[in-house]
Amino acid sequence: MNTTTDKARPKVAELTERLQREYGERAVTSHAIREQHSHGEGLADAGMPDIVVFPRTNEEVASIVRICNASRIPVIAFGVGTSLEGHVAALYGGVCLDLSQMDRVLEVNEADLDCRVQAGVTREALNAELKGTGLFFPIDPGANATIGGMASTRASGTNAVRYGTMRENVLGLTVVTADGRIVHTGGRARKSSAGYDLTRLFVGAEGTLGIITEVQLRLYGLPEAISAAVCQFGDLKGAVDTVIVAMQLGIPVARIELLDDAQMDACIRYSQLDFEPKPTLFFEFHGTEAGVREQAEMIESIAADHGGSRFQWASAQEERSKLWKARHNAYYAVLALAPGMQAFATDACVPISRLTECVLETQADIVETGLIAPIVGHVGDGNFHLVVLFDPAKPEERAKAEGLAARVSARAIRMGGTCTGEHGIGVHKLDALVAEHGDAVSLMQAIKRALDPNDILNPGKTVPK
Amino acid sequence: MNTTTDKARPKVAELTERLQREYGERAVTSHAIREQHSHGEGLADAGMPDIVVFPRTNEEVASIVRICNASRIPVIAFGVGTSLEGHVAALYGGVCLDLSQMDRVLEVNEADLDCRVQAGVTREALNAELKGTGLFFPIDPGANATIGGMASTRASGTNAVRYGTMRENVLGLTVVTADGRIVHTGGRARKSSAGYDLTRLFVGAEGTLGIITEVQLRLYGLPEAISAAVCQFGDLKGAVDTVIVAMQLGIPVARIELLDDAQMDACIRYSQLDFEPKPTLFFEFHGTEAGVREQAEMIESIAADHGGSRFQWASAQEERSKLWKARHNAYYAVLALAPGMQAFATDACVPISRLTECVLETQADIVETGLIAPIVGHVGDGNFHLVVLFDPAKPEERAKAEGLAARVSARAIRMGGTCTGEHGIGVHKLDALVAEHGDAVSLMQAIKRALDPNDILNPGKTVPK
Repeated sequence: MNTTTDKARPKVAELTERLQREYGERAVTSHAIREQHSHGEGLADAGMPDIVVFPRTNEEVASIVRICNASRIPVIAFGVGTSLEGHVAALYGGVCLDLSQMDRVLEVNEADLDCRVQAGVTREALNAELKGTGLFFPIDPGANATIGGMASTRASGTNAVRYGTMRENVLGLTVVTADGRIVHTGGRARKSSAGYDLTRLFVGAEGTLGIITEVQLRLYGLPEAISAAVCQFGDLKGAVDTVIVAMQLGIPVARIELLDDAQMDACIRYSQLDFEPKPTLFFEFHGTEAGVREQAEMIESIAADHGGSRFQWASAQEERSKLWKARHNAYYAVLALAPGMQAFATDACVPISRLTECVLETQADIVETGLIAPIVGHVGDGNFHLVVLFDPAKPEERAKAEGLAARVSARAIRMGGTCTGEHGIGVHKLDALVAEHGDAVSLMQAIKRALDPNDILNPGKTVPK
Repeated sequence: MNTTTDKARPKVAELTERLQREYGERAVTSHAIREQHSHGEGLADAGMPDIVVFPRTNEEVASIVRICNASRIPVIAFGVGTSLEGHVAALYGGVCLDLSQMDRVLEVNEADLDCRVQAGVTREALNAELKGTGLFFPIDPGANATIGGMASTRASGTNAVRYGTMRENVLGLTVVTADGRIVHTGGRARKSSAGYDLTRLFVGAEGTLGIITEVQLRLYGLPEAISAAVCQFGDLKGAVDTVIVAMQLGIPVARIELLDDAQMDACIRYSQLDFEPKPTLFFEFHGTEAGVREQAEMIESIAADHGGSRFQWASAQEERSKLWKARHNAYYAVLALAPGMQAFATDACVPISRLTECVLETQADIVETGLIAPIVGHVGDGNFHLVVLFDPAKPEERAKAEGLAARVSARAIRMGGTCTGEHGIGVHKLDALVAEHGDAVSLMQAIKRALDPNDILNPGKTVPK
């Protein structure tokens, strides 16, 4: 699977020579660099590109895509490679466009709470650049992903319950089309009814409809007050039910993260946390001093009704950072439980009223499989992950793990939810996409054919042929 | 323009006979009914359909569209006809699908704060149905439009500054495709990364890519406290600058509406309001008792810095209703200024930092034309309208009015904004769409061809051929 078809081979050789001539050291064919660009994180669906090019401008991206289109050679956009669903694997070889040198923040409009960045800017780099402006970009998927990658997978993460996902926070895009034109979608107005919503079409299209090279983003004022709290529960149901009530009351919590007992145990060991290995909620509140106090009091009282402990507060920046770092390291904490094992993440998201049922059924399912698969999630959105461990040396264990993951997707879909809240379809979930969207997939295929008739843009991903 | 091409005539006759046979009294060819369905509000671009059919189910819509597609006959979806950009005019004749009998609220999920409605449900009917649940649907474009029509034009209105537009509040759709299939997009999860965002593609597509027959909507808990206030200013600049500062501080106001002196004068006369004819802001605050108080105090102090009066409060439901009714009747209040005149609305939306400049330049432009064109707007989003009056008996006055409107669009685009914040493109703004989106329009055209290859769905609208 990981080479361009034999027929295209001579063209590929010609292309790599041409790119090396034009881009010099920014066009690399070494095995090490190609290998590094052949996969993301999670289950390693590797696919080696024939060449990795590091463009710096929209025009360079457009020029490369034009050549690839003329020769029917695949083009795969690459950020920092933190995708979890095999998005960056060059399944049919071709050109990997590593956008990491397109890393400039092009403008920050403080008065309008927006900015424009090149696709290769990471979310941490953006927030570092915003320091001193009083503004921040809240979307936080954990990994220090690029803004282009986050837009392409419709990423979200811990803050989405309050600030929305990339869908809500991208105002406009610069996109290179399959035939190598540079187009601009959306704009700087907060709303518009001018024509089809191309911005939302490219957000989440995983590089299969165009290459995102610039992103116009909403920003937010840093809240006057931020505080974080931890609440532990006797059972998982109490924790999830607390979230449901809080959401139904519309309390504008900034983050609500669930960690089950197994995940807490892993995090306590990995990050030296002073908590018990029980089902736990991490909260963060943003607002005015009075607003934060009011939100926290309401939630603490709901939690108490469901067997929650008193809140343990982390108001100082340093304590909060430690807490969220531990949360972000949940995946690595699980991996550290069993050296030599591999892990991958599931990504169910259901209507909030079904969350308890979905989590409890899933937990029983995990027990039945005998696998280690801690639960962690952005439960304010109804989204939770398992980090499923398996021994790569045992094919039957991998099969069991994949069976569990397939049942998690099917369960979420059956409950009116989705097989992926934030990781995307990539190569792993093409079947789940069809199960979830049925005949609507034919419209996605029609759009793919219309915007990329030669199927050069990240082929084999997102929508089945 | 308002008849199907001569070549299609025999087919149209055959079709209307067949539809009358199948739908009986629900298939109407009388002149009066066809005329009523030939236009929306605003500038009357009338186009008579050959027949108006009143389907009741998804299957009936699908069946009619299938027949029309086979015979290449246009199909135009119709809600209650409150569109302002000529969306419902049957420019090439064909079948008008009046969805007013698809008026059932299919389900309300109180625990998940969502509901599913047929496209013909109006927003007022939905809110009446929600009475007693503690929930409401906030999007309020003024007119009692249908949910299907609001989704199709990506409508918003007075509450959008806090609750977003139809773009943010439609979770999923049932859509009849151009070839007469029934597909479901989106779902009930709050977020998803599963495939292309078809929901956002159909929202705002003005019935040119498919016929929306059902809409899954987000709902919100009724706020614990609501209060409204009026603040009057010595000049327009003070009023607009107040809005800008409030938005930059991120104060979560539910509504901020601007009325200039001319608009206030019209509203005072029309709705017997006890205010002065000065530039005025109407505010509404939603939240907890303490939260509402806090928001209001912050804004009153900002307004005072910009020459605003003390707030005049309307906290009782009845007073608030009177206030917002007056605001919603702004258009009719202007019409009442000069009986016999016609009016239409412009719809500029700009980044908030450019709002004062845009409004003041526009006001000077109005003075220069000598026309009556009061300013009213959802200024929290950077969106404002002129209600431009002209004498239909004087072609040169209409030309002058249209010239003013074209300059308003161009000005908004030049300032990084959009020619339409919420009314849509319809037939009037095809040129402005191209001016705003340039080469990206070619992608819209490609999508139109892919999803409606025979150009039967609302032809002549939204995207130029």
